[in-house]
Amino acid sequence: MEAEAPARRGRFITLEGGEGAGKTTLSRALSAALAEEGRPVLRTREPGGAPGAEAVRGLILSRGPWDPVAEAMLHFAARREHVARTVAPALDAGIWVVCDRFADSTLAYQGAGQGLSRDVWESLCDLALGPLRPDLTLVLDLPPGRGMERALSRGDANRYEMQGADFHERVRAGFLAIAAAEPSRCAVLDAARPAAEVLSATLELARERLS
Amino acid sequence: MEAEAPARRGRFITLEGGEGAGKTTLSRALSAALAEEGRPVLRTREPGGAPGAEAVRGLILSRGPWDPVAEAMLHFAARREHVARTVAPALDAGIWVVCDRFADSTLAYQGAGQGLSRDVWESLCDLALGPLRPDLTLVLDLPPGRGMERALSRGDANRYEMQGADFHERVRAGFLAIAAAEPSRCAVLDAARPAAEVLSATLELARERLS
Repeated sequence: MEAEAPARRGRFITLEGGEGAGKTTLSRALSAALAEEGRPVLRTREPGGAPGAEAVRGLILSRGPWDPVAEAMLHFAARREHVARTVAPALDAGIWVVCDRFADSTLAYQGAGQGLSRDVWESLCDLALGPLRPDLTLVLDLPPGRGMERALSRGDANRYEMQGADFHERVRAGFLAIAAAEPSRCAVLDAARPAAEVLSATLELARERLS
Repeated sequence: MEAEAPARRGRFITLEGGEGAGKTTLSRALSAALAEEGRPVLRTREPGGAPGAEAVRGLILSRGPWDPVAEAMLHFAARREHVARTVAPALDAGIWVVCDRFADSTLAYQGAGQGLSRDVWESLCDLALGPLRPDLTLVLDLPPGRGMERALSRGDANRYEMQGADFHERVRAGFLAIAAAEPSRCAVLDAARPAAEVLSATLELARERLS
């Protein structure tokens, strides 16, 4: 019996940005659009995306304040579970993965927002992820005032959403700096535009960069 | 007004070893004996020793199996909270700290026991602890069969206690290797001896090495 050629690895697309920027809406629409093109798609989110990781998510969001290094380690512990149990097996099986937040969120929130050093973040990335990095990252950019209106109108604000305006400005600047430093992986989308336009810009980028 | 000389830093003593080796008994007796010598002593334990760290302890012990890197990161997230909120402030205030389990347990359990690489453990030590290391580490050594009898007779066995005999043999060998590699920090005590003898050997070591 001849061995079959291994399935082509799936693509790993992450959606990043501040509170209320429309990541969840885009995640749903993008997953549906990719599925319509006939691609197998797994939609997931962080922190969470695997049973143990969801338990860590609950701990991170329900307690605090944490020491910033401890908080980053909790995020990366959850991320390791998520990658090992969910993301990597899907990609290996040829499935495309659309993930609402990933490692860039830790750099923006714990780094730019809370003062964690970039060196610590990079070390944790290497320990938790090995060589795995997203193939495409969409940064949904929105002035924090507008995003927070959307986020708070959902009710039940979490610990990050309840931070002050300064924090959210630093997080926004953090995401823009990440995108500027890695233009071949990242693209910034104006999240104030209608959701349909954000989706079509995303699909255009996916076609350009992932085929 | 003249500035007072800063209080002399306290000493950091950690107790390590497998299940049922008598760490908790020694921790109580050692703390009491040091207090009788007039030293301010804080007795603590890991995983735990600070509110957030105790919450992580609950998560580690109640769930699983975790990916070994994720599990080590959870331990070090708890350790960072414990060090930042409890251990370092006490040492800075001149208080001696007696801690039931510390970073060596992660190397023995997740490293020797579960296959985590020593490099990952060292990176996590550096990230979580900076330069802080114990001044004296007592490794309580006991054949796993005897230790497990004691541990299981307490009832309510945790996830580590429920591992097989092979696992506990690897953990024991892991602790002995740590002690052999760092003889100036570590001492191995025969935990099959009566508790009073283990205590007096410990006090002798503390006098020799910490004064």
